[in-house]
Amino acid sequence: MDVKVGIIMGSDSDLLVMSKAAEILDELKVAYELTIVSAHRTPDRLCEYAKTAEERGIKVIIAGAGGAAHLPGMTAAMTVLPVIGVPVQTKALGGVDSLYSIVQMPPGIPVATVAINGAQNAGLLAAKILATTDGELSKRLKDYAEGLNQTVLKKAEKLEGVKYEEYLKQM
Amino acid sequence: MDVKVGIIMGSDSDLLVMSKAAEILDELKVAYELTIVSAHRTPDRLCEYAKTAEERGIKVIIAGAGGAAHLPGMTAAMTVLPVIGVPVQTKALGGVDSLYSIVQMPPGIPVATVAINGAQNAGLLAAKILATTDGELSKRLKDYAEGLNQTVLKKAEKLEGVKYEEYLKQM
Amino acid sequence: MDVKVGIIMGSDSDLLVMSKAAEILDELKVAYELTIVSAHRTPDRLCEYAKTAEERGIKVIIAGAGGAAHLPGMTAAMTVLPVIGVPVQTKALGGVDSLYSIVQMPPGIPVATVAINGAQNAGLLAAKILATTDGELSKRLKDYAEGLNQTVLKKAEKLEGVKYEEYLKQM
Amino acid sequence: MDVKVGIIMGSDSDLLVMSKAAEILDELKVAYELTIVSAHRTPDRLCEYAKTAEERGIKVIIAGAGGAAHLPGMTAAMTVLPVIGVPVQTKALGGVDSLYSIVQMPPGIPVATVAINGAQNAGLLAAKILATTDGELSKRLKDYAEGLNQTVLKKAEKLEGVKYEEYLKQM
Amino acid sequence: MDVKVGIIMGSDSDLLVMSKAAEILDELKVAYELTIVSAHRTPDRLCEYAKTAEERGIKVIIAGAGGAAHLPGMTAAMTVLPVIGVPVQTKALGGVDSLYSIVQMPPGIPVATVAINGAQNAGLLAAKILATTDGELSKRLKDYAEGLNQTVLKKAEKLEGVKYEEYLKQM
Amino acid sequence: MDVKVGIIMGSDSDLLVMSKAAEILDELKVAYELTIVSAHRTPDRLCEYAKTAEERGIKVIIAGAGGAAHLPGMTAAMTVLPVIGVPVQTKALGGVDSLYSIVQMPPGIPVATVAINGAQNAGLLAAKILATTDGELSKRLKDYAEGLNQTVLKKAEKLEGVKYEEYLKQM
Amino acid sequence: MDVKVGIIMGSDSDLLVMSKAAEILDELKVAYELTIVSAHRTPDRLCEYAKTAEERGIKVIIAGAGGAAHLPGMTAAMTVLPVIGVPVQTKALGGVDSLYSIVQMPPGIPVATVAINGAQNAGLLAAKILATTDGELSKRLKDYAEGLNQTVLKKAEKLEGVKYEEYLKQM
Amino acid sequence: MDVKVGIIMGSDSDLLVMSKAAEILDELKVAYELTIVSAHRTPDRLCEYAKTAEERGIKVIIAGAGGAAHLPGMTAAMTVLPVIGVPVQTKALGGVDSLYSIVQMPPGIPVATVAINGAQNAGLLAAKILATTDGELSKRLKDYAEGLNQTVLKKAEKLEGVKYEEYLKQM
Repeated sequence: MDVKVGIIMGSDSDLLVMSKAAEILDELKVAYELTIVSAHRTPDRLCEYAKTAEERGIKVIIAGAGGAAHLPGMTAAMTVLPVIGVPVQTKALGGVDSLYSIVQMPPGIPVATVAINGAQNAGLLAAKILATTDGELSKRLKDYAEGLNQTVLKKAEKLEGVKYEEYLKQM
Repeated sequence: MDVKVGIIMGSDSDLLVMSKAAEILDELKVAYELTIVSAHRTPDRLCEYAKTAEERGIKVIIAGAGGAAHLPGMTAAMTVLPVIGVPVQTKALGGVDSLYSIVQMPPGIPVATVAINGAQNAGLLAAKILATTDGELSKRLKDYAEGLNQTVLKKAEKLEGVKYEEYLKQM
Repeated sequence: MDVKVGIIMGSDSDLLVMSKAAEILDELKVAYELTIVSAHRTPDRLCEYAKTAEERGIKVIIAGAGGAAHLPGMTAAMTVLPVIGVPVQTKALGGVDSLYSIVQMPPGIPVATVAINGAQNAGLLAAKILATTDGELSKRLKDYAEGLNQTVLKKAEKLEGVKYEEYLKQM
Repeated sequence: MDVKVGIIMGSDSDLLVMSKAAEILDELKVAYELTIVSAHRTPDRLCEYAKTAEERGIKVIIAGAGGAAHLPGMTAAMTVLPVIGVPVQTKALGGVDSLYSIVQMPPGIPVATVAINGAQNAGLLAAKILATTDGELSKRLKDYAEGLNQTVLKKAEKLEGVKYEEYLKQM
Repeated sequence: MDVKVGIIMGSDSDLLVMSKAAEILDELKVAYELTIVSAHRTPDRLCEYAKTAEERGIKVIIAGAGGAAHLPGMTAAMTVLPVIGVPVQTKALGGVDSLYSIVQMPPGIPVATVAINGAQNAGLLAAKILATTDGELSKRLKDYAEGLNQTVLKKAEKLEGVKYEEYLKQM
Repeated sequence: MDVKVGIIMGSDSDLLVMSKAAEILDELKVAYELTIVSAHRTPDRLCEYAKTAEERGIKVIIAGAGGAAHLPGMTAAMTVLPVIGVPVQTKALGGVDSLYSIVQMPPGIPVATVAINGAQNAGLLAAKILATTDGELSKRLKDYAEGLNQTVLKKAEKLEGVKYEEYLKQM
Repeated sequence: MDVKVGIIMGSDSDLLVMSKAAEILDELKVAYELTIVSAHRTPDRLCEYAKTAEERGIKVIIAGAGGAAHLPGMTAAMTVLPVIGVPVQTKALGGVDSLYSIVQMPPGIPVATVAINGAQNAGLLAAKILATTDGELSKRLKDYAEGLNQTVLKKAEKLEGVKYEEYLKQM
Repeated sequence: MDVKVGIIMGSDSDLLVMSKAAEILDELKVAYELTIVSAHRTPDRLCEYAKTAEERGIKVIIAGAGGAAHLPGMTAAMTVLPVIGVPVQTKALGGVDSLYSIVQMPPGIPVATVAINGAQNAGLLAAKILATTDGELSKRLKDYAEGLNQTVLKKAEKLEGVKYEEYLKQM
């Protein structure tokens, strides 16, 4: 199975958050690679990664970083591939710094930004992008959405059948 | 040329901003449709639009809205297609309300969010998504990026050749 | 006793917060139903819930959600009933995202927004709305307000009678 | 026609904003009274207004104020009637100060808060509350919503029929 | 010793914060009274407290509250005495809501606002106000300031004499 | 008439805002001095001003500044007199920077902060402080408050007597 | 005179702001070069600029950018020279996005951040850095500071000599 | 080894944060002094420290403080030396108050601001400033940067060689 998605992050301290992107791609049977690329500590590695991703067969890049988060935008500056940015939550500012650093890109270089710590959604978005020309993946995404739907319906049915105090106790 | 991108917005007051997405798609020779779909004033139209977009051949949806901006997220909830959200600037809060309403989606339903008023980047992102399986579009995107590069280099050369006061006068 | 209030929430993770609405309605002897409706994971259920609420006898809907919280606004878009929105606190942004997503509705579709995590007040507001044409409920609300008043007066009396250190120790 | 809605504001500098509540109530044929009550400059008038509103037949109060906006919350503290708060935009902080001062009420005293400068929605919300027991008003509200729907559909049809540049020129 | 300062708070949950005002006034030998007055749950008590404070000999009022904090401003609206407002920290918004609700008063009704949870400074400010016509209190305040100065000088001397690791261990 | 209030500001660009403090003191017949003291550009002048204010008979200092506004806090650090801080509105951040720089003082050194651009309230607060031991000034402040009250009552009466459209036209 | 300072900016739309850095360096007789380097549109140029600056004799780099402002941080990642970052004001967010993108750098790669639009201070800071080993420049900086001091003293003297209304008229 | 860097902080409660500046300077073999100087509690000490630093041989000052953080700016006002400001995180506002108080300095008096709690970067920045005329220090800084680079490369290699679950377990 060819690797289609590259998941990169600025530091291994982001791995707990970013692994959610890998998890959902595993679930959707999308092959990915996952590594550390620091815009600030390994700028040459960033250049090389971004510039060679396309020729290595990568179709979508997911980049997560926190604080003055330059990894997603700088990657987007050096590749024609769509780049998905994951703003990682920060201690002092809750991740607003990460969010602004990633989403407020200037005209010409978009980053597809998801929620703060929203790595799972980054994985889903990558899959949605690939699914625009992959009917089977599209089918798996629809099944996934239907699964979410069913989970809510079951919980709703359960909650309607008991007193909420009971439901809370069982959580 | 088949329509590949659907551009929707909550109100025609968003058209001045959102037309930048259309402009860049025109420039990149990507066919699109553009219309108004209000999540709050035409919820049935929203459902129909979102649920039929895929079968009508749309590959990517760009949705722009301001304030409590529900259009991008609700569209994403009803289609497997990737949805790009454009937070439109607002008078009171500058668009932070739009941004939070669009980007902070819960796990399971991603919206690819761009900058406040970043409709041009939304168009570019749609093109980048399509270009993952369209070599010619990919080429045009690379040319576009090279064009941005050249424009900066020319301006830089000019600025290096004159006093900045002179450059400012000529702007 | 007819069900007059519908309490819905986007996820059962909101139940601990939203159950405060149920508690106060129990205390005020207002019948309610309580269930899960996710705008994003069960959009069809949302449409059905919102469109049939009135005919099922519901008079007021309380909707709670967090992050890009679309449930209250989308419900309001599909019913003539007053909708009360409860912004649920979030980890990264404290609930400002929820608040903006709920309160900043465009002209034409109001959501009666209460404080972040203010589900108890949502219940009270629903009761106040029903009490505009229900004298007995109005009486119970006045008793409730008088109860709050008395509780403060008793605490004040106690605090005035001891050293504050003593009062703090007994808390 | 009995006066059912009381519209109050902290200063006549809020009238331009708050008159949108009156306009929509006029359109919906809901009788209202409109006056100035300043929480800070006329506290006695506030007490009297809030305490006598119910006996004068008022069913819903709409209160607008800006900055440290205490009018809606203090009114709610002195009446069993539902109080709708309109945060008025401010020069320095855009109205976030007004919003927080109105929406973040403590448990026990809810204020139904609408968007910054959202006086039209406050009027609609008041009508929705009255319509819970007034079938004709409920019908007018449904017609109003249908009118919004039709307006969007017409604009959408028009926009789909011309180039967007043309549409923009005609705005 | 005549009571000169009235310390009021919206709830006994604010007592832990507000007791710092009492502590410093004890230290400075300024007599005070301390009680609970809720703007929202005991509005009549608020009116009575604010309107009679002057005649009871109170010279300065310290009022603390959190969230949509109306106590300081409403007190200031009903007395000629200077009112010092203490914004109490809140869970969701950190106290920005309290701060804006207290400090952003309209022209005509000032509230002397201190830092979030800054009750100790509220007590000091009350003392500074009284000291404008009380030479002995002024002297005690100068001694207090000199005490702060000396404490810093001693700590600085200690820190300059050891390795910082050592200093940290001893903290 | 002895000068009781010192009004200082960081720059003459603050004078338009800060002159409102002078105006109201003129109206209340409180003598003041008004000058420029820059914490950053004239630190020695700041030290001298703050340290000699008391002996020159000043009872209250009003200090206004914008951005990283250190003038009020540094003045408070060098005098026993109460210092009132006026956060001046700023272009980029609306004055939140000024507000935080002034209000968030550490324990031990309070600044009595008023609203952004709230120099009139700073003047009133200074008068309220002086009025704690000046019965005539206290009387003038009560008359001033009564004047505010009457102005609102008259406007309210007028607004109740005409259609709001008419009132708006006459503004 | 050797060029010691490199001033770069992301776009010529930043030139009006950034030219203030050049102006003050001219005044202080510090030689500089000034050009455009876009992190996103000319990433190769950025790498080359940053990596060769030191060998070309540059001692300090001033980098200005707005929005998701990556230029200062990415420059700092590729040179041992101190980099001063100037957050340029933005329309939607006032420059908070620029500020966070520049100042919140991760451990290991500092950017010396000045105020939003604070290019003049960036120039001064560069001069202060150079002056640590350049006595004559240090002298010019002291004269500059003394000049600021004198300007304030003169304005203060003038303001103390006239009514403030008069001073305002002459501004 | 001559002391080149002065590290000061407003309180010993800042020492845990600020000691990171000392640590990195130790690692880079840059001599420093470290002490407590409170702008508000020891203003005279602040004046003396700032005014004598240069003559004592100090080349760069690092100043950390939280809340209404005046220490860095006031120090900068009284010395020609470059001053680096460290905004210390605060409980209520996360350090946004500290950041704004330090970075938003007016024209004429720059403070080189680093990230919230970014004391390590303050130390590195001081070293970078000294290294502009110290080739050996410059070499050590390059080695330090290369060390960061190598650390990332090793972690990346490791992460690429194992399943991420494995890597997470070993953290």
